[in-house]
Amino acid sequence: MKNFGLATLLVGLFSTGTAWTQEPSAVDIAAASQRNVILIIGDGMDDQQITIARNYLAGAQGKLLLDEMPLRGAVQILTIEDKVDGQPVYVADSANTATSMATGVITSRGRLATSAGDNRPLPTIVELAEAAGYRTGVVSTASVTDATPSAFAAHISFRLCQGPDLMLEIVYSDIPLGGCPNEIKAKGGLGSVAEQLAESDLDVVLGGGGRYFDMTAEGSTSTVREIAIDNGFSFVSSAGELVGAASADRLLGLFSRDTMPVRLRGEGGREAEAPQSSWLNQAHRYLGSVTQPAPMDCEPNPDFAGMPSLKEMTDAALAVLAREDSAGFFLMIESASIDKQSHERKPCGSIGELEQLDEALASALAFAQANPNTLILVTADHSQAAQLIPAQSLFAAYPIPVFSPGKLARIRTPEGRLMAVNYATSNFFMEEHTGANVPIFGNVEAQGRVPTFLSQPELFGIMKDYLGLE
Amino acid sequence: MKNFGLATLLVGLFSTGTAWTQEPSAVDIAAASQRNVILIIGDGMDDQQITIARNYLAGAQGKLLLDEMPLRGAVQILTIEDKVDGQPVYVADSANTATSMATGVITSRGRLATSAGDNRPLPTIVELAEAAGYRTGVVSTASVTDATPSAFAAHISFRLCQGPDLMLEIVYSDIPLGGCPNEIKAKGGLGSVAEQLAESDLDVVLGGGGRYFDMTAEGSTSTVREIAIDNGFSFVSSAGELVGAASADRLLGLFSRDTMPVRLRGEGGREAEAPQSSWLNQAHRYLGSVTQPAPMDCEPNPDFAGMPSLKEMTDAALAVLAREDSAGFFLMIESASIDKQSHERKPCGSIGELEQLDEALASALAFAQANPNTLILVTADHSQAAQLIPAQSLFAAYPIPVFSPGKLARIRTPEGRLMAVNYATSNFFMEEHTGANVPIFGNVEAQGRVPTFLSQPELFGIMKDYLGLE
Repeated sequence: MKNFGLATLLVGLFSTGTAWTQEPSAVDIAAASQRNVILIIGDGMDDQQITIARNYLAGAQGKLLLDEMPLRGAVQILTIEDKVDGQPVYVADSANTATSMATGVITSRGRLATSAGDNRPLPTIVELAEAAGYRTGVVSTASVTDATPSAFAAHISFRLCQGPDLMLEIVYSDIPLGGCPNEIKAKGGLGSVAEQLAESDLDVVLGGGGRYFDMTAEGSTSTVREIAIDNGFSFVSSAGELVGAASADRLLGLFSRDTMPVRLRGEGGREAEAPQSSWLNQAHRYLGSVTQPAPMDCEPNPDFAGMPSLKEMTDAALAVLAREDSAGFFLMIESASIDKQSHERKPCGSIGELEQLDEALASALAFAQANPNTLILVTADHSQAAQLIPAQSLFAAYPIPVFSPGKLARIRTPEGRLMAVNYATSNFFMEEHTGANVPIFGNVEAQGRVPTFLSQPELFGIMKDYLGLE
Repeated sequence: MKNFGLATLLVGLFSTGTAWTQEPSAVDIAAASQRNVILIIGDGMDDQQITIARNYLAGAQGKLLLDEMPLRGAVQILTIEDKVDGQPVYVADSANTATSMATGVITSRGRLATSAGDNRPLPTIVELAEAAGYRTGVVSTASVTDATPSAFAAHISFRLCQGPDLMLEIVYSDIPLGGCPNEIKAKGGLGSVAEQLAESDLDVVLGGGGRYFDMTAEGSTSTVREIAIDNGFSFVSSAGELVGAASADRLLGLFSRDTMPVRLRGEGGREAEAPQSSWLNQAHRYLGSVTQPAPMDCEPNPDFAGMPSLKEMTDAALAVLAREDSAGFFLMIESASIDKQSHERKPCGSIGELEQLDEALASALAFAQANPNTLILVTADHSQAAQLIPAQSLFAAYPIPVFSPGKLARIRTPEGRLMAVNYATSNFFMEEHTGANVPIFGNVEAQGRVPTFLSQPELFGIMKDYLGLE
């Protein structure tokens, strides 16, 4: 994106021997003294999303597994301009928020584990844990090169530089969106996100994003995937192969070219739609009539067939990470498309991905049952656009058309009711994020360690302290 | 609204001697054994509203007093259709939510402490507390006859039946909105909300709503206010009089004709406004330009001058309620216009009213410091429309106009930044409520008594148990 003398800064960082650049030291401690952190991130999983999903999955009076967690609090999301000591920005993206959690440092939108303004690489919890003998992993339903997983193990100024072919200039629909030309290896940089992951010390990398690993690595004739395999990763690309990979020492699993397909969709792929105004209503808003979008069922997404679920990826990750000859592990698990489907105004999609998160949480809790020194945190990175609004307006007694100015989905819920989900933050083909603080949930190990209100960067310190990292 | 044989039901209720109809029994216990509950309700105070207010009042990295509370959790909002055993409705209003908290019963929108479908009066925490020798009060920045305060001490099928002149038919802008014709006293009903409050055993009633008390009571030549005074209330109508009323035995204070004016407003009364599309943009959304609403300052609302603050009303209520010759007290305090200003797309107004709530909480905490057996709960009744969206779109790199389809306010914050607040749930002149679960905060007495996730009706049981009520 911008060149703030990255190469110079990297040299400075390496030469001071900062922990995140060290090789893991050999550790051989009894399993009983191991400590583990499982951080589960629901991208965009705010209280609107949780309530929408709960109503659909468990009923208005039901509970998600999330709701049963003994600790619940709120996380204050912090973002700054892309300047050293930048001023506050009130709405985040998934790159700067993942950076907050991974590094404890507030940065600017679009950045992965780099500092605002001067583009310093920031040591991550994954790198600190690796240096102290912990095993580490990231799991996501997005491309593993997407913002949330990447911020835990890669350092780059611009999140879209996901593969070696995307370093110089990223073009979408003929629109240039930027690049990372000064962070290529030829200029002393760390290269693209995929290259950094392939060369990392991570033990588990599971999710989508095969297309970035099929690219030829910079200055090489090998693909990024081949480089990962050379670096010791076993590679799988199907749910069946994943089941058989529990004994792998290090595991890279890529199950789709980019974001993994989601579990649920609106019937026939429907999304939220604009209410249709009659001619008379267009002449004056108090006249004529407005037709709300027809009710919609959620249905299984056929593209999801054959994909491993987030729970299956979690189970595989736990199997690979839990080894006696380590200090324990750090595992980040992301349900990414709660957010992505909300950007695309697809409430059924978000609901299914929140269900996937709740299932992954069940696996994490079962693991913690058998391994009590396991801190489980579940949180969101930022809030999103979707709003649960009345299926019948509060103002229905007024004899005029009342309707959303945005896009609306009216979902038939399993308990036989209509649930109206509104998307109205943008006229664009994508909705915006919103800026509310987000929930955090924790297991018994979180009690006394996680305050009921904290800033997002404080999560880094809590996890670091739990693992005894310096 | 509807007649479900109210008179018959009321006779049945009275004849069974249900607690809420009994006179308070004489109690004389030492102050040390007293127990108090202070329930503070921020109407519409969801996490978007809290974050918007926090950013403005304390800065992006600041904290409200709310945020310092030792207990934080989430409350599941429950609503049903207006039928016995009605099916779930996913978005509430302030009437049914206040009924949940006041009575522990899920009801339908618009109802005050009456059951869905069959219109049974439901015993409230105020009535149970009075029967057990507790003093009781309600304080609101709305009319005291508005939904939230009224549900704690009145029973009616339709919240708009606030005064005796509004029982037969309520008409707004020539539009008939309904009424409570079968609940007039001549038909064996309890009469309007104002009459029920005037005849209640409440010890403190403070807020707006003078116009409903100036109406002539049904079957009487006296105004409702005169009936309240006959019933033992001292009456005040100004901030100055309120200060001198701390020694009153029972206190009715009405400081405005209806909702009390709010503390803050947009400069010159500005509210959120629609972005303005150029002619070319109207032809195609990817063309032309869009002008965002000009930045806005918040300023003191001149209409607020002379009003008592919510904190001053809270201090007066605590002074009147805290008496040694009682079992303790129950006090409900509502900051009403967080919601009302959000309906009207006035973010500065909501911010100021959230500040008022935080100040009232300071008074409550100071009281609890001196009187440790005081349970303080702070919560919202339902979520609201306002959303904090990016001041600069996440999609600003795309060379097309990106803007909200609703109404937007871009507020200048004291830390020198722009905060964009979006309202886009309705084309109507009022925004809708939303259906997300809402936060709850508690003091030390709440710890161990309030789970981190609970349904709204469960609050009734928690408060009842704390006060030892049957």
